[in-house]
Amino acid sequence: MDTSNTASETICSDKVEGTAVYDNNGEKLGSIESLMIDKRSGQVRHAVLEFGGFLGLGTDRYPVPWSMLKYDTNRDGYVVPIDNSRLADAPRYPLTEESPFTTDAGYGQRVNNFYGY
Amino acid sequence: MDTSNTASETICSDKVEGTAVYDNNGEKLGSIESLMIDKRSGQVRHAVLEFGGFLGLGTDRYPVPWSMLKYDTNRDGYVVPIDNSRLADAPRYPLTEESPFTTDAGYGQRVNNFYGY
Repeated sequence: MDTSNTASETICSDKVEGTAVYDNNGEKLGSIESLMIDKRSGQVRHAVLEFGGFLGLGTDRYPVPWSMLKYDTNRDGYVVPIDNSRLADAPRYPLTEESPFTTDAGYGQRVNNFYGY
Repeated sequence: MDTSNTASETICSDKVEGTAVYDNNGEKLGSIESLMIDKRSGQVRHAVLEFGGFLGLGTDRYPVPWSMLKYDTNRDGYVVPIDNSRLADAPRYPLTEESPFTTDAGYGQRVNNFYGY
């Protein structure tokens, strides 16, 4: 018997991208712009967040470990346990630049280290 | 020492979506529309292909196991080891319908079974 249940456990990438991201206090931080995927395994490693200039954070992209995101059905969005003071020092890159993921071998690991993952 | 190398091993979802898909003979089949992701683990389970009406296949969506896709740097696209005769019987759903992944618990497994994954 097939006991797998993929229906409630999978989500389409086009439902993830553009989805709102909130902090622990319920403040909207921004949204998910894209996902960084391990080519061989197909494992999503990071979500790339955009803040759309909110709170003076500009249009930089903020990658966070995928496992840091928790989906909140009430808010219909993701919650990340970070606040604005932490974001001030967080790894980021300008929208206009090439993603460091493609040019810097240790970038993903450093993102994980920053957030303690 | 950090020996991980994420630079060459990760790819952004926005580079995957829209990327061309070829068969073993180098014929373009269509492109990747979206990805089905395991919510908890972040594992990409399936790529959802669109064929854009090519070869009379209409605008149905064809999910295939992620592990079936091989990236071909020469073609700058993915290769899937299927031909048109196999696609005639392949699992699919109309663009206008809700994705069976969200309504049918066994759908992902049946897709895998069809392709022998």
